[in-house]
Amino acid sequence: MTLTQTHSYKELNERSVLSYLEDKRLLTDKEKASCKEVGDGNLNYVFIVKDEVTGKTIVAKQALPYAKVVGESWPLSLERARIEASSLKHAAKTVPDLVPEVYGSDEDYALTVMEDLSDFTILRKGLIEGETYPHLADHVGRFLAQTLFSASDEALGPVEKKKLAKQFINPDLCDITEKLVFSDPYYNADTNSFPEELREDVEALWQNSGLKFEVAKLKKKFLTEGETLLHGDLHTGSIFVTNEETKVIDPEFAFFGPAGFDAGAFLANLFLNYLAQNERQTDEQKKQASRQYLLKTAVKTWEVFEKQYRDLLKKKGIDEQSRTDEYADYLLDKIRTDAIGFAGCKVIRRIIGLAHVEDVDGIENEEGRLRVQRKALELGQELILKRNTFTSISELVTWIGGDQS
Amino acid sequence: MTLTQTHSYKELNERSVLSYLEDKRLLTDKEKASCKEVGDGNLNYVFIVKDEVTGKTIVAKQALPYAKVVGESWPLSLERARIEASSLKHAAKTVPDLVPEVYGSDEDYALTVMEDLSDFTILRKGLIEGETYPHLADHVGRFLAQTLFSASDEALGPVEKKKLAKQFINPDLCDITEKLVFSDPYYNADTNSFPEELREDVEALWQNSGLKFEVAKLKKKFLTEGETLLHGDLHTGSIFVTNEETKVIDPEFAFFGPAGFDAGAFLANLFLNYLAQNERQTDEQKKQASRQYLLKTAVKTWEVFEKQYRDLLKKKGIDEQSRTDEYADYLLDKIRTDAIGFAGCKVIRRIIGLAHVEDVDGIENEEGRLRVQRKALELGQELILKRNTFTSISELVTWIGGDQS
Repeated sequence: MTLTQTHSYKELNERSVLSYLEDKRLLTDKEKASCKEVGDGNLNYVFIVKDEVTGKTIVAKQALPYAKVVGESWPLSLERARIEASSLKHAAKTVPDLVPEVYGSDEDYALTVMEDLSDFTILRKGLIEGETYPHLADHVGRFLAQTLFSASDEALGPVEKKKLAKQFINPDLCDITEKLVFSDPYYNADTNSFPEELREDVEALWQNSGLKFEVAKLKKKFLTEGETLLHGDLHTGSIFVTNEETKVIDPEFAFFGPAGFDAGAFLANLFLNYLAQNERQTDEQKKQASRQYLLKTAVKTWEVFEKQYRDLLKKKGIDEQSRTDEYADYLLDKIRTDAIGFAGCKVIRRIIGLAHVEDVDGIENEEGRLRVQRKALELGQELILKRNTFTSISELVTWIGGDQS
Repeated sequence: MTLTQTHSYKELNERSVLSYLEDKRLLTDKEKASCKEVGDGNLNYVFIVKDEVTGKTIVAKQALPYAKVVGESWPLSLERARIEASSLKHAAKTVPDLVPEVYGSDEDYALTVMEDLSDFTILRKGLIEGETYPHLADHVGRFLAQTLFSASDEALGPVEKKKLAKQFINPDLCDITEKLVFSDPYYNADTNSFPEELREDVEALWQNSGLKFEVAKLKKKFLTEGETLLHGDLHTGSIFVTNEETKVIDPEFAFFGPAGFDAGAFLANLFLNYLAQNERQTDEQKKQASRQYLLKTAVKTWEVFEKQYRDLLKKKGIDEQSRTDEYADYLLDKIRTDAIGFAGCKVIRRIIGLAHVEDVDGIENEEGRLRVQRKALELGQELILKRNTFTSISELVTWIGGDQS
């Protein structure tokens, strides 16, 4: 439901959020409830609220009008809360089991009230610990196929698709991605962050005009190709898992962009973890098992995605042409090539750019960490430059397994 | 100015428009004024209003909530009037001399009040009569360069560009183009209209799966590649000319799409007229002069466009990468290839589809008309299938001049 809007924005706290939820009948009794703010991001408050009467817990996520990490100096549109809630609701139409259920949203307060996932683990954390999840590839492959198809021209027709796209124009958050993924890592930008030991490698990358040209092409795709509604930030920190279940969260970066972008983000984060495991795991057998699992997950995710996407096109494609095999081949080649290129950009930004990943930065041995960072820079560049040469993700992964071990 | 909006839509007539204009102080005295509705389109009223006090004439164009030609059965969003006025105002920022001046617009009445161009000739009509316009290529080339660049990511940056794009989401009119240009001509659709004598040629085209696949790719570009703000319907009926001046009118189809689309429409209409002249002109010398002029205009328009677009990129490109020669080469290759493909689609739709052009349909000799229609179908298919093989418009035009004479 959309909660009635009769107020203007103010920041909630652990007490006021309880009054709010009781008021909206999302909580039985604020005096018989507990609340904890657990947001570790820098853009939102995340309140976990336990209703002691029913025993049920829910999450209330409120967007902040600025990026917390830099005080109030980086203002951010509250629109992203509406976009996040709308994106979750849109995904729930095709993959209700793969996103948290939304109980209510409030545009004025930039608030989304949803299913609590405290029993889940953040996938990134699980992977760092060498965990494996038997259904992950099935789930993420299905998430990609269903969400990417369901908002495309081929599924909706151009009129409905344009009406939907209008609701997901997301200039502020797309701008963050544009800067941090496609621009800043490729010159000496203030936002960059990398150890001095990598300077030589990074400066070589900045001098690589062939690479920068390819990144410019990928950036242009990101900026202009409104193929479908994307999650927009599908790294392993946006995925919650248990042994049985998978939930994709945090689609505040959602926008209409190139279909390969989400898959590219996911693959990049699997690959980063794969490189990191080499230095993280001391038990050789466990290391091999963990790394094999990551590569297999990459391949299987793509296979599930591709099979389901082809089925959807064939069964639900809006016109005859979009139901032909050659059109499916054409689309899936494009999505794969784009995804590999975007994966390369995502790998590089996690080494040179502002926001790093714990998979790599958490490696305690400095020499080992630098080895991984150098390999990641190499891999990222190869993914970008060679994206057109791989005819399948299986081929790509075989190459990574042989070349980057 | 945006006129105050305190009313709801109603259709104006030759009398009520005078009251309205007097009320808005765009007319001195409605009793000392004359008005004539001259709209020959099927989507709008066009009132030409003469202020007898000042001697000045102005145009008031009102969008109709349905397509007139089919009664009220094809409802159309009045949004297009806002889009047309906004597009004219946007173009006036860079090419004020190439669009009619807008004196006022009224969203509720779906009305735009603008400069009267009664002294101008519709370019299509002039070209049919074998006229030549010495500044046409310069003007259209500059129009394309300035308007296409000024709304691109390279000019505006992604945030401003997205905000602008949001104002030009145009589902209804894009849907008309999608159907009439990219879908209906390629199967036995009710909207199609062609002489029985062409049936064999048309059915052969419907059987050409290679062609239909390429058209599907071009349609996908039209639907997904939001590169810049387009005019959206830049045929020779949307251009008014005198010997000295050129005005681009009627941008109600404006939307953010692939940059090559407008140039493709213009080229297609030059080529259609070129083919038609072969049967229209009986004086061989005049025929050659007219046809040479058309091909030279195509080449020169592109040269002016390309040179100015490159200059704009180099001087005003938002980041270092967009100012490099290799990026300019990449963009202009893409725009040219797309334009040739779109030109092919535009040629074909004028032969098979709902809306034809007088250049061809007005040829009185039936055999001659059919010869032109067959040549146009051939040319359109070649443009689509061979669009990647031409390295310049000059090369394309040399081929047309040699092959299609």
